[in-house]
Amino acid sequence: MNDSALLTDLYELTMLQAYFDEGMGERAVFELFVRALPPQRNFLVAAGLEQALDYLERLRFTADELAWLSGSGRFKPAFLDWLRGFRFSGDVDAMSEGTVFFADEPILRVEAPIGEAQFVESRLLNLLNFSTLIATKAARCVLAAPGKLLVDFGLRRAHGAEAGVLAARASYLAGFAGSATVLAGQRFGVPVFGTMAHAYIEAHPFESEAFTQFAASQPSRVTLLIDTYDTEAAAAKVVALAPALKARGAQLVAVRIDSGDLAAHARRVRAIFDAGGLAEVGIFASGNLDEHRIAALLAAGAPIDGFGIGTQLTTSADAPALDSAYKLQSYAGVPRRKRSEGKATWPGAKQVYRRFAADGSLLCDHVTLIGEPPPAGAVALLQPVLRGGARLAASPALDALRGDAAANLTRLPDALRRLEAAAAGESYPVHISPALQALAAEVDRRPH
Amino acid sequence: MNDSALLTDLYELTMLQAYFDEGMGERAVFELFVRALPPQRNFLVAAGLEQALDYLERLRFTADELAWLSGSGRFKPAFLDWLRGFRFSGDVDAMSEGTVFFADEPILRVEAPIGEAQFVESRLLNLLNFSTLIATKAARCVLAAPGKLLVDFGLRRAHGAEAGVLAARASYLAGFAGSATVLAGQRFGVPVFGTMAHAYIEAHPFESEAFTQFAASQPSRVTLLIDTYDTEAAAAKVVALAPALKARGAQLVAVRIDSGDLAAHARRVRAIFDAGGLAEVGIFASGNLDEHRIAALLAAGAPIDGFGIGTQLTTSADAPALDSAYKLQSYAGVPRRKRSEGKATWPGAKQVYRRFAADGSLLCDHVTLIGEPPPAGAVALLQPVLRGGARLAASPALDALRGDAAANLTRLPDALRRLEAAAAGESYPVHISPALQALAAEVDRRPH
Repeated sequence: MNDSALLTDLYELTMLQAYFDEGMGERAVFELFVRALPPQRNFLVAAGLEQALDYLERLRFTADELAWLSGSGRFKPAFLDWLRGFRFSGDVDAMSEGTVFFADEPILRVEAPIGEAQFVESRLLNLLNFSTLIATKAARCVLAAPGKLLVDFGLRRAHGAEAGVLAARASYLAGFAGSATVLAGQRFGVPVFGTMAHAYIEAHPFESEAFTQFAASQPSRVTLLIDTYDTEAAAAKVVALAPALKARGAQLVAVRIDSGDLAAHARRVRAIFDAGGLAEVGIFASGNLDEHRIAALLAAGAPIDGFGIGTQLTTSADAPALDSAYKLQSYAGVPRRKRSEGKATWPGAKQVYRRFAADGSLLCDHVTLIGEPPPAGAVALLQPVLRGGARLAASPALDALRGDAAANLTRLPDALRRLEAAAAGESYPVHISPALQALAAEVDRRPH
Repeated sequence: MNDSALLTDLYELTMLQAYFDEGMGERAVFELFVRALPPQRNFLVAAGLEQALDYLERLRFTADELAWLSGSGRFKPAFLDWLRGFRFSGDVDAMSEGTVFFADEPILRVEAPIGEAQFVESRLLNLLNFSTLIATKAARCVLAAPGKLLVDFGLRRAHGAEAGVLAARASYLAGFAGSATVLAGQRFGVPVFGTMAHAYIEAHPFESEAFTQFAASQPSRVTLLIDTYDTEAAAAKVVALAPALKARGAQLVAVRIDSGDLAAHARRVRAIFDAGGLAEVGIFASGNLDEHRIAALLAAGAPIDGFGIGTQLTTSADAPALDSAYKLQSYAGVPRRKRSEGKATWPGAKQVYRRFAADGSLLCDHVTLIGEPPPAGAVALLQPVLRGGARLAASPALDALRGDAAANLTRLPDALRRLEAAAAGESYPVHISPALQALAAEVDRRPH
């Protein structure tokens, strides 16, 4: 399903047929960008490029798909025949995954014959929107919990299979320690974490027996779930069991608390463990957490060493979508833009330059037309990744991208690192070049 | 990816190994339910059962997956060997898709050897959560726009591939006319709809030329996008072009407006069309719509015939997750429940009965233990669908389920059909049987 060429909006196909019928094959430039940051976001973290490039490289219509299109009665035989050889043959420049970016900055630029460049719109948005959304939400959690172990627990509330797996990848990229989702381990090498469910405890007649049996089954790095019946009573049972577990070779590393007042329980459990000789056993918390609740727990001094974050991460619940767009910037060398109310965009093929302060922190960005001289000391964020439909280089390792993302977060100005929306005067400066502003005015003066 | 047995949380595998090691193979009953309705929801619409049953019937570990698990070093050879033959061999009773349901009512009951019943938790929740979320959001849109053509436009903002396709299916099930997502047409027979993007208009030197060329390419049921530059000017161009389009055999059925004050534009365009002899040409609106905006447009008398609904539908943006759970209800014939604060659940294998008023509307539901005598005149909502790991009957056609969903919505009491949350006194009565309440108290008295 995920690789189907039919994973697109119908209008991409009807437009493709129209371009075909009209013989419109000149090159077009499209750019993908976000019109405005969601509420409570001071930055976004680019993610999903790897999947987007996979899609572009592999795109083709299968015989089954062509037969279905033919049967739909909407398409002409000559067009369907041409679709058989349809490939993405264009060029892509993009921001590297893990790069922090802002509103109005293209993160991906596609140049290809217009039919190809148009057709890939729906899936490119679908892929880049979601991974960027989750990497951004995860980055906020990372900023809220410096030095803590954060794990994605979100598969069950993710919107389907791909969302579950890509959320694991995007959150790891943004600094999470790993995910509970096993498939993300197999597919992307994301470290996987897991303990036990309440059902496992309940299926045993006594909680202590469940703890003992579980540790016997997998003695390496045991984490026990202690809130099924009475959290503090279970902590006391863990203390009592600890010598026997150790004697049998089990390595108890943590307990998990999943309900109630997490700060209060963590304090009491910490005290029980410290008094019981289990100072080295950590406390891991889960249960409807997000960056704000984590920050509040840590601000209150709750002795929690790690957090499992599910629903709020994997659905980006407070901002479950980006106001993103994939827009035609030029066709046959002529810059274009729509003027739809509230939705006008900057025309022409563009570059984003970033300048840094002496201490390495982000200073400001410049959005310019391609070919404008770069601002002094600025770094170009859009780099060539695909030429003639093929990757220019093997994909960077996920751990390398994760390092880049961490460096990006470190370089954020303090005002942007806060969880609350930056005040108007503190938002990050993104300058639109005078040449770009002049071009927009010129395009608008054209008759249509 | 979507069918992988590794699409699960790690703890499902570690628990499975523990059950294996302990020789725990007695039958367990798990139930899937929602703890509380999301804010602004007076009911939920069950969906996703078809995909859940597909998952259960097809579940198996491939050689690649077993090799990866082996390489992870977490699992013992005897367990991995046993996994090779692992299948879901259990029984499932469930509410039919399209059924309206409420908090605390199981919509799916699984009975199987505990390892199997436990293992399927993550993906069952992942599938049923999402489709139910979207069917419910779509049903609210349908209630807000009686008689209007509603189309899912959400693929680009859906959370990945599966979310896009399943959102199309779930919204069609709940009463939408169809979706823009082509793959939902191929996979599920969902009617597909589409027009053109602004880029298509912009790629032509003149808007009129784009209209003419598009109609020439696909003359059947043409919808033209008219807000690229100036909506009313484009409407006037459509009037001027109409005779020529008709002469060439093109059938102009509608125009689409995607920006600005949709009510004001629709009124002006309607007036231009009516004065220009295009009274039969409809107006279709899109652009960040949800059930509230649609209701407001219709309440204001906006002459809009159909709506394309994207982001808000496909992410269920105001409630992007359900507070759902899949909980052990009994093991080896003994009822179980956890007592975790704020998360206690009703123990035992249960049935949901629904009673109807004389006019056919929903009166109240009863949650009972299996084996309790049904309330007089009540209908049992959980019906057998899978026995011994195999479907009892072929899946109902999607259009039949769509009819059931429509009937369910018709039978909703007025207070629940409103978009706003029902007042406390108006929420739907779900009675927990005295025997079930007594059992919960008895289970809690057991030592653990």
